[in-house]
Amino acid sequence: MTATDRAPGGELPRHRPTLAEIANLAGVSPPTVSRVLNGQAGVALATRQRVEAVLREHGYRRRDSEPAAILELVFHALESLWALEIIQGVEQVARERGLAVVLTEMQGRLTPGRAWTEQVLARRPTGVVAVFSELTVQQQSQLATRSIPLVVLDPTGEPLHQTPSVGATNWSGGMAATRHLLDLGHHRIAMLSGPTQWPCCRARLDGFRAAMDAAGVYVDPALLRISTLYVEGGLRDGAELLRLPDPPTAVFCANDLQALGVYEAARRAGLRVPEDLSVIGFDDLSFTQWAGPPMTTVRQPLVQMGATAARMVLHLADGEPLEQHRVELATTLVVRESTAPPRS
Amino acid sequence: MTATDRAPGGELPRHRPTLAEIANLAGVSPPTVSRVLNGQAGVALATRQRVEAVLREHGYRRRDSEPAAILELVFHALESLWALEIIQGVEQVARERGLAVVLTEMQGRLTPGRAWTEQVLARRPTGVVAVFSELTVQQQSQLATRSIPLVVLDPTGEPLHQTPSVGATNWSGGMAATRHLLDLGHHRIAMLSGPTQWPCCRARLDGFRAAMDAAGVYVDPALLRISTLYVEGGLRDGAELLRLPDPPTAVFCANDLQALGVYEAARRAGLRVPEDLSVIGFDDLSFTQWAGPPMTTVRQPLVQMGATAARMVLHLADGEPLEQHRVELATTLVVRESTAPPRS
Repeated sequence: MTATDRAPGGELPRHRPTLAEIANLAGVSPPTVSRVLNGQAGVALATRQRVEAVLREHGYRRRDSEPAAILELVFHALESLWALEIIQGVEQVARERGLAVVLTEMQGRLTPGRAWTEQVLARRPTGVVAVFSELTVQQQSQLATRSIPLVVLDPTGEPLHQTPSVGATNWSGGMAATRHLLDLGHHRIAMLSGPTQWPCCRARLDGFRAAMDAAGVYVDPALLRISTLYVEGGLRDGAELLRLPDPPTAVFCANDLQALGVYEAARRAGLRVPEDLSVIGFDDLSFTQWAGPPMTTVRQPLVQMGATAARMVLHLADGEPLEQHRVELATTLVVRESTAPPRS
Repeated sequence: MTATDRAPGGELPRHRPTLAEIANLAGVSPPTVSRVLNGQAGVALATRQRVEAVLREHGYRRRDSEPAAILELVFHALESLWALEIIQGVEQVARERGLAVVLTEMQGRLTPGRAWTEQVLARRPTGVVAVFSELTVQQQSQLATRSIPLVVLDPTGEPLHQTPSVGATNWSGGMAATRHLLDLGHHRIAMLSGPTQWPCCRARLDGFRAAMDAAGVYVDPALLRISTLYVEGGLRDGAELLRLPDPPTAVFCANDLQALGVYEAARRAGLRVPEDLSVIGFDDLSFTQWAGPPMTTVRQPLVQMGATAARMVLHLADGEPLEQHRVELATTLVVRESTAPPRS
């Protein structure tokens, strides 16, 4: 055994282990390893886990057959135009390559369940695009073992982006939105953030802080709220902000749905947007231009983000290296009618 | 041969023809028939067409093996929340049954191309839900031959609903919207219809006419426009209506996107909704409640329509008869702030 035959720091041979060797190490028969690899039923859970552990430990990768002409697309939830635009982008690329898109909704959960994993392994897709999702280490290694590439769009669980991923320039977008409000003359600027453990939300908040700091404007902690990314969150937290003794004159929201909630909170408080309160969203979903009033927002190129994620998966499936492991597409400030100078 | 062995008016035996008999009649080998049935390559177009013709003529239905755990969902276009709500309903039912949903977008075309047909035949899905689509007679018979059930949601090409289908009570919805405007005191009521060769659009228009007739109010042909089902259509035709010497005081639109276009036409003409012009949409997409002003519209239960179509397909796949060949789910008038009495 030569030096290059050793895994770094390990005792195990680095040549590609055969299915028979894996079976031997796991103390099962080769057909059992096959069944585990193909996601087939009829293997006890403990046995399956033991085989998975050996596959993982030895970096086994199956390369013996063609994958199915399927691209898996998995969403935490299908609940706004946000999802639809991403689907359009993925469909576009899949169509060019003659791949069928299998769409799975996780009903709001961020991590797919075991049934999903088993079904995906059985379908043997060309690759997986996971949107706003968090696959477990085990699920990631199960895909890797079968040579099924994975790309995440807006990862929720990996601040360091270890899995190849696509996002938007969220930090710059947060900065641009906040500067727009500062340029209009606002100083009492509130921000509704999404949950900050999610990198995309954290980056928008950090962009807000950076713009405020650069302008030398104090960030009042009372004007910072962590909210949900839904209309209801914007309505509830927006209403609380407007009830403060010294309320904000402008609110930057982490997405368009929150901003619609703030519209409603303002309406209920008898305030007009933008005369009494400026509001900015994030995403530029197509209906924001028809909102009352048409919304100033930060555009994410969602269709292109979906297409880019799909292309990265296909690159990996073709065995080509990625030019970039983490891709961030540019955001743009779209100024409409929900922002104006503060009342003097 | 007994009487019941004869097809009505035909010379052909009514027993289920075997693959070998089909091959013999088409003058090809049985493996060629198999390849055609499985949508595989390597069969000349003329041969494929001859085999399809024999399969169709003899009512051949394959029942020899289990279909894949796949439900095909095909859309003319993925462009509004309308599509997303239908997807949610189909996903729901597919999840209950452990089926993967393969989503195909036809980029605005109503009839899928040959590549789609071949891919679907090769995937051998449990069934197909086609939304706002028009499969050719040949495509329908190709599915039938492989025992792949088809249900259409909002069929565009079959006024008589020969294929099992799901829709909403469009006629009643059109009637309810128009009555609401009449009850408010409007008489100069315009309607923007969608293309009337599509049954769902024709039914909405007929409901409009029925309500006007019942109220004894004249339908001015100048106030009836056939438009596209997009914002741009509503904007263009809405603007023309508002330029008439005797413009309408209210407009009933065939969908919510058109109504947003009429909002914009009114805004450009310096008119306020609802003070100067009442507007009603159709669909109740979730953002209409946040439009400026919140929109009065006719709700279609789109999630349930998607779920119903999927359930009908699974019923057929299980070999069970459908309770109803054509299902229409109820529409509801949702009154918000875009309708008011006319200026006196």
